[in-house]
Amino acid sequence: MAQLLRVQNFSVSSDGIGAREDQSFESPFGLDPGPMFEWAGATASWHLRTEPGGSRGLDDYFIRDFSCNIGAEIMGRNKFGPQRGPWQDHDWQGWWGDEPPFHTPVFVLTHHERPSFALSDTTFHFVNGEPAAVLEQARAAAEGKDVRLGGGVSTIREFLDADLVDTMHVVVAPVRYGTGLKLWDSPDELRDRFHLEVVPSASGVVHHLFWRK
Amino acid sequence: MAQLLRVQNFSVSSDGIGAREDQSFESPFGLDPGPMFEWAGATASWHLRTEPGGSRGLDDYFIRDFSCNIGAEIMGRNKFGPQRGPWQDHDWQGWWGDEPPFHTPVFVLTHHERPSFALSDTTFHFVNGEPAAVLEQARAAAEGKDVRLGGGVSTIREFLDADLVDTMHVVVAPVRYGTGLKLWDSPDELRDRFHLEVVPSASGVVHHLFWRK
Repeated sequence: MAQLLRVQNFSVSSDGIGAREDQSFESPFGLDPGPMFEWAGATASWHLRTEPGGSRGLDDYFIRDFSCNIGAEIMGRNKFGPQRGPWQDHDWQGWWGDEPPFHTPVFVLTHHERPSFALSDTTFHFVNGEPAAVLEQARAAAEGKDVRLGGGVSTIREFLDADLVDTMHVVVAPVRYGTGLKLWDSPDELRDRFHLEVVPSASGVVHHLFWRK
Repeated sequence: MAQLLRVQNFSVSSDGIGAREDQSFESPFGLDPGPMFEWAGATASWHLRTEPGGSRGLDDYFIRDFSCNIGAEIMGRNKFGPQRGPWQDHDWQGWWGDEPPFHTPVFVLTHHERPSFALSDTTFHFVNGEPAAVLEQARAAAEGKDVRLGGGVSTIREFLDADLVDTMHVVVAPVRYGTGLKLWDSPDELRDRFHLEVVPSASGVVHHLFWRK
């Protein structure tokens, strides 16, 4: 079985924006991302859900699929934290809390060395390299399972440009941001290389499912 | 985490028929079921796929979800084989081949005793009891994971009547059979007890997602 590189549950605004540029410790997305992630928070399987209930409809399938047959994640440095340049402080261990939702090895792309560390069943490695080389490391760590490409926007663009992405699930939310980091002007830009299915959900988001031609 | 009882990927015709009544060793569904299952065979993750390729769109999500977080299956006797009455022949080990696609304990509902046996990583147990009691056995065997209710039609109806089903995914295929074992006259019959999302797929089938109110 081939080990796929998969983008999963990556949310963007209706104008294709995944985050703003003014990221900070307090604001991982550089904005209140609420409207963009409401679809996820409304599902029964959302990992931060504290109350019973929630939808077990279509959106819940995608939320549950997040960890199915995934053995490693690759993420950009900005998904780990807002720092730029050399790491000043190893005590700060990322935005993901004591129980990160990954439960696998995670490869954080950075030009600056930092020792690996584990939080619960997630281990963060800090790697410097071309996308293809990092993917090879992640595949080896995934022990036969698929690798998730976790984002953000720049990281997904980088792996798309290197033609390494096998499948991509992007959730377009009914909110418009105007300015920020853009994944695309239109999902149609990818139709030359990918099949695309567009699936509207009752929640108001539109699931975009891409797979390589 | 509650252990759900889930119906998954259960296919019916547009007139709600899951199988015909003239089941035989040669014909598990009492008819050529081809048109009803074409949606599954066209996916990349279908377990019987021999050629590369196949869709990784919406239908593939449901096919992949079949085994995610499932720890046991309950099936009616007619999903195991066409025999009726006492078991005449223990050598015949069901329709599912040497590598059954379940990979968990399977509880086969029957009034007639038969010893358990294993085929690859699937173990078949033959149980006689009320739905609630069988579900309790299956939950214990599932070790914290969910239990799949595998069908056929009569088994699903029996567990629905006992109000034990938590979620149900039924795939309505664009084919009409006229006569046979009916799951429903209309999916709307279940709206009093279940939320329902209706999601058309590019393949022509319509996914029906039910979850308990």
